[in-house]
Amino acid sequence: MKKVINDPANVVEETIEGFLAAYKDQFRKVDDVNGVVRRDHKEKVAVVTGGGSGHEPLFIGLLGEGLADGVTLGNVFAAPNPYNIQEVAKAADKGKGVLFVYGNYSGDILNFDMATELLELEGIECRTVRVTDDVASAPADRKTDRRGIAGDVFVVKIAGAASETGLSLEEVTRITQKANDHTFSIGVGLTPGSIPGAAEPPYTLGDDEMEVGLGIHGEPGVKRTKLLPADELTDNLMDTLLKESGITAGDEVCVLVNGLGSTTLMELFIVNRRVTKILEEKGIRAYDIDVNSYCTTQEMGGFSITLLKLDDELKAYYDAPAISPYYKKLEKKPVKATQ
Amino acid sequence: MKKVINDPANVVEETIEGFLAAYKDQFRKVDDVNGVVRRDHKEKVAVVTGGGSGHEPLFIGLLGEGLADGVTLGNVFAAPNPYNIQEVAKAADKGKGVLFVYGNYSGDILNFDMATELLELEGIECRTVRVTDDVASAPADRKTDRRGIAGDVFVVKIAGAASETGLSLEEVTRITQKANDHTFSIGVGLTPGSIPGAAEPPYTLGDDEMEVGLGIHGEPGVKRTKLLPADELTDNLMDTLLKESGITAGDEVCVLVNGLGSTTLMELFIVNRRVTKILEEKGIRAYDIDVNSYCTTQEMGGFSITLLKLDDELKAYYDAPAISPYYKKLEKKPVKATQ
Repeated sequence: MKKVINDPANVVEETIEGFLAAYKDQFRKVDDVNGVVRRDHKEKVAVVTGGGSGHEPLFIGLLGEGLADGVTLGNVFAAPNPYNIQEVAKAADKGKGVLFVYGNYSGDILNFDMATELLELEGIECRTVRVTDDVASAPADRKTDRRGIAGDVFVVKIAGAASETGLSLEEVTRITQKANDHTFSIGVGLTPGSIPGAAEPPYTLGDDEMEVGLGIHGEPGVKRTKLLPADELTDNLMDTLLKESGITAGDEVCVLVNGLGSTTLMELFIVNRRVTKILEEKGIRAYDIDVNSYCTTQEMGGFSITLLKLDDELKAYYDAPAISPYYKKLEKKPVKATQ
Repeated sequence: MKKVINDPANVVEETIEGFLAAYKDQFRKVDDVNGVVRRDHKEKVAVVTGGGSGHEPLFIGLLGEGLADGVTLGNVFAAPNPYNIQEVAKAADKGKGVLFVYGNYSGDILNFDMATELLELEGIECRTVRVTDDVASAPADRKTDRRGIAGDVFVVKIAGAASETGLSLEEVTRITQKANDHTFSIGVGLTPGSIPGAAEPPYTLGDDEMEVGLGIHGEPGVKRTKLLPADELTDNLMDTLLKESGITAGDEVCVLVNGLGSTTLMELFIVNRRVTKILEEKGIRAYDIDVNSYCTTQEMGGFSITLLKLDDELKAYYDAPAISPYYKKLEKKPVKATQ
């Protein structure tokens, strides 16, 4: 795979440099480690997210008002080390404690937990919400084993909104955990992405194949099938997603149709067309819909669908403004009649 | 190439349906044609952009406050027909005239000009600015032969800002033409994208090759070479861009590093890192920097660099708010000291 890079060993450092070259007025690098924090967040619970690099704009693109205050970045598809996490948390901390929000992967768990121990020795209180939105990654009775994928976006969004209101660490944690418990995703892979410097792609698929439930690092999915037309594929994914989530008539959801890298926005719109039709047919209200590529796997082909089941509390935080270079929610304008 | 589509003949219609499913509170379809307009733009010059589909989020993603009021969409990589253009212009028109802003391609010129004639018979005054930012597509003495690529974004942004102020059609046209005359881009292709339903990619490149100056429909570039490291490639592109644009020490520019589809944001940041270093070394001030994939060629690999040379007038319009689902500029906050 052709990549526009220099030394593959330096991609994360150079990514951060290139990000800060564009947005240095808003963010600064954390000394010594691959981490970035906001310059101007107020005295509040600090929301720190992160994980392996290679999923851009996640996580670095979620820094901003009403979102994350700090990001800690590992190498491509590798968890950040405890020192990295610790330094970012210290740089983001405003004396009100730190909430870590990250995808539920064993390397991340190990390192964030170790950092938490070290930080608490230093007197910084930490809490954790692990994102577990991928319904294809474990059955419902092992929900805490599920992986985090594009649902990170909704969970970080709610965490950031809750923390901006000045709530306590306990309250921000409770609301963020609830956001995670209400967030459900399923993905499909069509073509593998490639890791900078790696000779081989992380997995292979036939020219006419796709893999339902594939993880964002190429983890095995639940079913490998022939490529289906967009509508039929979307029907299948939504069937699983609605069954696993228990979302049903009368519920209200936010939707994210997320591209994995090389799947075009045109294709994502075509998927969204079907997603919204299905929701309408089922009597589920789409409160807000976002179609974008926030959580990628390098240039992997494929997409995921995420539903966030709203209640009044989550809706209020969802509606709060969020302003990062790659994710912006402005104050909602009154909706006009549909023509 | 694997695509998440249904019938390839319907991709544009279904793209519009999927777009409107997400953003119907802000935009509406124009009856009978593949076109979309804003619901709520005020009495002002209407800015209408468009061209072939397949470059998403361009053009549909540029609809919004301070941007385009209408978009007219052809099939993939094909100009919209005159009737389509005419209907969109009529739907966007608020009695103050229509400014067409589109990339300089023969099919688009023919059809927009024909629509203009028909509209003027109906008493709607029209003006045209053709975007000609691609410095690789014709020499400086044939500047009006140059193609429009990612520079569309800056030119539409300035046009929208100028029209929001309530200026006359003549003035909005003058300012938009100036924005185009100050906008310069160069691109490079690494892997071809594919057209939905087409058996073959629009061009081929060797596994270790890239093509400098490649157009956004696969038009030939100026040089086919071995793949270079990101810094060396960026040095070469910036050399050409600075020479062709005449941008020099003391100038102030806006920068857009634009991905063509499957080139990752990580790679674009790595390119931006070098672009900003070069500008700094040359004494050129980067007033604002944007790193994103706005003007794509399906899942083509590669990127382009665009520079908009500012003066006081253009800067004021650049700074105006712009709010679309895929391009947002908020009011500028005061810049803090760089750490």
